[in-house]
Amino acid sequence: MSKLRIVIALGGNALQRDGEVTAEAQKSVAEQVGKTIAKLSSKYDIIIAHGNGPQVGNILIHEEVAATPSAPAMPLETAVAMSQGQIGYWLSQAIDNAFTREKRHKQVASIVTQVIVDRNDPAFRNPSKPIGQFYDAQEALKLTKSKGWQMREDAGRGYRRVVPSPKPIDIVEKKQILTLVEAGVIVIAVGGGGIPVIQTKILKTLKGVDAVIDKDLAAEKLAELVKADMFVSVTAVPNAYINYGEPEQLALGMLSVKEVEKYIEAGHFGAGSMLPKIQAITQFARKKKVGIIASPDNLELALARRAGTIVQ
Amino acid sequence: MSKLRIVIALGGNALQRDGEVTAEAQKSVAEQVGKTIAKLSSKYDIIIAHGNGPQVGNILIHEEVAATPSAPAMPLETAVAMSQGQIGYWLSQAIDNAFTREKRHKQVASIVTQVIVDRNDPAFRNPSKPIGQFYDAQEALKLTKSKGWQMREDAGRGYRRVVPSPKPIDIVEKKQILTLVEAGVIVIAVGGGGIPVIQTKILKTLKGVDAVIDKDLAAEKLAELVKADMFVSVTAVPNAYINYGEPEQLALGMLSVKEVEKYIEAGHFGAGSMLPKIQAITQFARKKKVGIIASPDNLELALARRAGTIVQ
Repeated sequence: MSKLRIVIALGGNALQRDGEVTAEAQKSVAEQVGKTIAKLSSKYDIIIAHGNGPQVGNILIHEEVAATPSAPAMPLETAVAMSQGQIGYWLSQAIDNAFTREKRHKQVASIVTQVIVDRNDPAFRNPSKPIGQFYDAQEALKLTKSKGWQMREDAGRGYRRVVPSPKPIDIVEKKQILTLVEAGVIVIAVGGGGIPVIQTKILKTLKGVDAVIDKDLAAEKLAELVKADMFVSVTAVPNAYINYGEPEQLALGMLSVKEVEKYIEAGHFGAGSMLPKIQAITQFARKKKVGIIASPDNLELALARRAGTIVQ
Repeated sequence: MSKLRIVIALGGNALQRDGEVTAEAQKSVAEQVGKTIAKLSSKYDIIIAHGNGPQVGNILIHEEVAATPSAPAMPLETAVAMSQGQIGYWLSQAIDNAFTREKRHKQVASIVTQVIVDRNDPAFRNPSKPIGQFYDAQEALKLTKSKGWQMREDAGRGYRRVVPSPKPIDIVEKKQILTLVEAGVIVIAVGGGGIPVIQTKILKTLKGVDAVIDKDLAAEKLAELVKADMFVSVTAVPNAYINYGEPEQLALGMLSVKEVEKYIEAGHFGAGSMLPKIQAITQFARKKKVGIIASPDNLELALARRAGTIVQ
């Protein structure tokens, strides 16, 4: 019997614990993730998508602060590619090591992934995602003039660049990823939501754009394209909740697409946090598949549909 | 008839022209490389290895100069992984675009690659490869104390960190790369000589080490492991030379392993430049295969054994 194929979306925060952000600290958290993946791999074929928020944030800070004419700052789209190399390396080594410790073996591969967005996506007219470091008002104005960056004041802490967050519509490396999955490889892909690229109007060539694709939506798109059976967004909490943080807070278990749509409409999920995850798993469930929200602790039970929030 | 399989090693400088080091400038050079690769791919199955000297140098400068407690500097091994993401992205997009312009299509994939070195490699006792930025004597002493870095004065320009350059002995992702090649994918791998890892003594788990693996030796190892027919080191000059820069300078064409060994022994090739390339192609030729040195301009002819330096 062939195994169920699952796409697991890990938060970029999933590699950080107690604000420890050195490479050593993040690698040590990755070793825990690796252990979980190695365990699950005896039951499932696994594809891992991961966030990169804190990591690409630090790359951008370094690139911007220390830029010189002979060592210019890399743009956001290239910084996303750099974070895919970084986190892909940490995760693939950690998973490999988990197998080695158990005297098992399974191949792992991390693929640099470009995700296509629509160049007419309305998000390009309304950049909303803050990235990189804080600047004062004068510096912000200078950056707008010199680089065309859109800057926005962020809660009294200064100005930050805002970039568009367009929807993923296709994944350039989907077939390559599928080839590896079918050969039994655990694949790490669409890191940080993927490197955002558009297709040029006439030639249809690819061109990177400075944008950030939501990692749960990109992971869901990948789950569709590789014909996964289940899509799981792994987060810090074991479930999605309605009336979150209020006395009548309720953890959601199994529910239908219709039910979850009702809760979305009623505004139960936080825009920058649970909403994109719920939207992504619901989108997947619409394809007559299973979408799941779980934490690292209840992930195994959730895949067996015995815990977590399950939309189907 | 199945195509000949070739591994092409590109210099890290191959993406830079006239000292232009912005992402845009490097991408535009990559488009040229992409055109060449797309053309060659109708005759050959291609795997690309690339250097990362100038790119990882700039990443390290940014990481070191702008490090703070909340955004600490990534170590060299992780910086190599970052450069694999960066250059792998530029190259795969450029190759893809070259096909699109010709209304053809072929899959391309860039794989984050770890290369195993021997933890007892004598290079670890004699770090020799300078990396990152220059420091003054006082800063250098401080870095030796705080980070254990070995520092060396570099031609009156200040002190730089020196790291070991151990030999590649195996490639962690070799089977994954081969799976993709056999599926007809143009693969980009072992970027920057690969992320250097050792196997720990008892558990045999992988661990990154701050070292730099010569990209030609790593590419040659890959060529052996994927059973390539030819291995080409692409450089700025069309041939290797004896008596280079002297009146009796002579471009080498076809020669045997024995002949080239004689020239190596006589000291004809520069240590940091042509020597590792000649050593790599000779090592490959010893396996009864064909090792080539060529420039981008004569690459196609060299693969047909009508130009370049060919050791067999």
